Amino acid sequence: MRDVSIIGIGQTPVGEHWDKSLRQLAYEALAAAMQDASVTRVDAIYVGNMLSGEISGQAHLGALVADFAGLPGVEAVKVEAACASAAAAFRLGLMGVASGYQDIVAVVGVEKMTDDVGSKLTAGLASAADADYETVQGVTFPALNALIMQRYMYEYKVSKADFANFSINAHANGANNPNARLQAPITKEIFLGGGMVADPITLYDASPMADGAAAVIICPAHLAEEYSSKAIRVAASALATDTLSVHDRKDPLWLQAAEDSARRAYKQATIGPEAIDFFELHDAFTIMSALSLEACGFAERGRGTRLAVDGQITLEGKIPICTQGGLKARGHPVGATGLYQIVEAAQQLRGEAGQNQVPNARWGMTQNIGGSGATIVTHILTNQKNH
Amino acid sequence: MRDVSIIGIGQTPVGEHWDKSLRQLAYEALAAAMQDASVTRVDAIYVGNMLSGEISGQAHLGALVADFAGLPGVEAVKVEAACASAAAAFRLGLMGVASGYQDIVAVVGVEKMTDDVGSKLTAGLASAADADYETVQGVTFPALNALIMQRYMYEYKVSKADFANFSINAHANGANNPNARLQAPITKEIFLGGGMVADPITLYDASPMADGAAAVIICPAHLAEEYSSKAIRVAASALATDTLSVHDRKDPLWLQAAEDSARRAYKQATIGPEAIDFFELHDAFTIMSALSLEACGFAERGRGTRLAVDGQITLEGKIPICTQGGLKARGHPVGATGLYQIVEAAQQLRGEAGQNQVPNARWGMTQNIGGSGATIVTHILTNQKNH
Repeated sequence: MRDVSIIGIGQTPVGEHWDKSLRQLAYEALAAAMQDASVTRVDAIYVGNMLSGEISGQAHLGALVADFAGLPGVEAVKVEAACASAAAAFRLGLMGVASGYQDIVAVVGVEKMTDDVGSKLTAGLASAADADYETVQGVTFPALNALIMQRYMYEYKVSKADFANFSINAHANGANNPNARLQAPITKEIFLGGGMVADPITLYDASPMADGAAAVIICPAHLAEEYSSKAIRVAASALATDTLSVHDRKDPLWLQAAEDSARRAYKQATIGPEAIDFFELHDAFTIMSALSLEACGFAERGRGTRLAVDGQITLEGKIPICTQGGLKARGHPVGATGLYQIVEAAQQLRGEAGQNQVPNARWGMTQNIGGSGATIVTHILTNQKNH
Repeated sequence: MRDVSIIGIGQTPVGEHWDKSLRQLAYEALAAAMQDASVTRVDAIYVGNMLSGEISGQAHLGALVADFAGLPGVEAVKVEAACASAAAAFRLGLMGVASGYQDIVAVVGVEKMTDDVGSKLTAGLASAADADYETVQGVTFPALNALIMQRYMYEYKVSKADFANFSINAHANGANNPNARLQAPITKEIFLGGGMVADPITLYDASPMADGAAAVIICPAHLAEEYSSKAIRVAASALATDTLSVHDRKDPLWLQAAEDSARRAYKQATIGPEAIDFFELHDAFTIMSALSLEACGFAERGRGTRLAVDGQITLEGKIPICTQGGLKARGHPVGATGLYQIVEAAQQLRGEAGQNQVPNARWGMTQNIGGSGATIVTHILTNQKNH
């Protein structure tokens, strides 16, 4: 099995791109990543996307992206794992390179959600849940997460205010990220005054839907220096699943697939959580931040919000999270999010994170979640040449 | 890179399964394949599917299939490449094993189309074409194929009757396949009397939509004999793309991605078309059979229909095609079709094709096509232990 490195990164701003089509967004990110890697061709393109069929009437994104990028003939497929589509696509790209099937591979995550913010989008997002046992009841993702958050607050005697810093931290970092969807910092008062979405989830617990695309170029680690002096090594990759329905889990307050994928990732990288310098987690809702930190070993069970309350998740804290704004402020173009996380982690490890730079970042972890935790993909990246 | 073998196969009958859900169909095929391979667990599941989001409101099929199969926690993703989804999923499964990321892998193709045969299905299928430049004009897949077939007949001075044997051969073989959607043989008179679909395509040129699921279990070739005495070696795998829109191609009568993927496959297997004992091609429409035979080197340009007219595509012919009925008679559950082809090829190579057995079959080729040829995946399988 060959080791793999990231030699190029690219992204579009996250926002409402009514003037750009799906293919244009994908192309912009791909072209930026190819330019960054100084490559003019690739052996394969893996596209992460969730909703193009439902929202845009366009399936077959592999061929579409290859064609519009002026790379017809090149191998290309789409990978879908709900909101974890992009990290799943990245993992399959790693396999393409690791196997020797391909050398230079592009992975693109793209999503266009704002053309139809009505019933199509809500129904499309709900398709990540169990259509026969959850969605049929009328439950949506904010509702599912609200049920989990209610239970969490009751079980662990945590208040709504204890979640405030997850949102405040994300918005503070988003304010310094020119690609973020939301670039205004918020206060605790603003957080607590947010309009109700699904009790206890209010506006500032929930990440905004958005359009956007992010891309990376990867190649065998032993070739990486031919293309980039800033290559980032992929030290670990793991994908685990859990029951699709929340009600089928023994413990709805535990992300088993996060624990499983993180455990495998730590083993591959031969490090533990204490070595991780920053963590791009999947804060689709603030409750998910708490659960992710617990399942990955950064906090005891039921103590995830303490890291936020104690200021340990900021850029200067023990475990910085959402360093470019996270899903909450950078925005959550669902099928692209996992690659925004990986691009942002690479920026940190290259020392190119601007005002959001984590000092001396050497090990970064990313975690992309599909549905209510039914698919969770964890990656560990490093700039340590001797890894 | 590790060589890969198929150690288990499974399929459901192709038909209108109104009494079975998407997950049940997938499970039946997967369970049959696991039983055939004598395995009780797998390291990963790759699901090929095109339309579950659009038709059934269910995305996230990787986690769904893993969960319903009683394999929660196992790695699982969905792969989509329009009607080539299943063969693309198979190829990614090969990469999982070849890379060493996984040892025992399941690949499942599943599609459920008959719950909604109205606007959702037509729109869903059309999403394989270019939404912004083809579908927006109101063109559907029968219409696109009709335009190609019209041009072919004009350019190469071929009559509608010259296509008859593609359909007659498929139905003859389907009649002996208990899993086929259509099990009645047809005559030339029946073919020529078919109702008009899109001139010159009539009923017997077009494959029927259907529900169904097919699955295989694969593992590293060096471990295959531990699991099966009938292991089939994957001798070649290639995926190529072409422009998404037909009008963007230099020659609309040439499947460039078929030529490209077949050329790569022949090179990997170190054989040429003359060594292929049977060819499971993608006869979504009869015109596609002719184009596929030409692009893969079985006929000269413009002479694909001659193979049919001359009786060379039957089980006793020079290059048997659609040996279990093909898309035309076995049926075309779009995101599952590529795995039906691979399962049927494995049956031939195991000598288990019943009345449709090709004598002394040693090398089988499968080709799965997405859209109007924008994604084409070619595999070569063999029972030659010394390959």
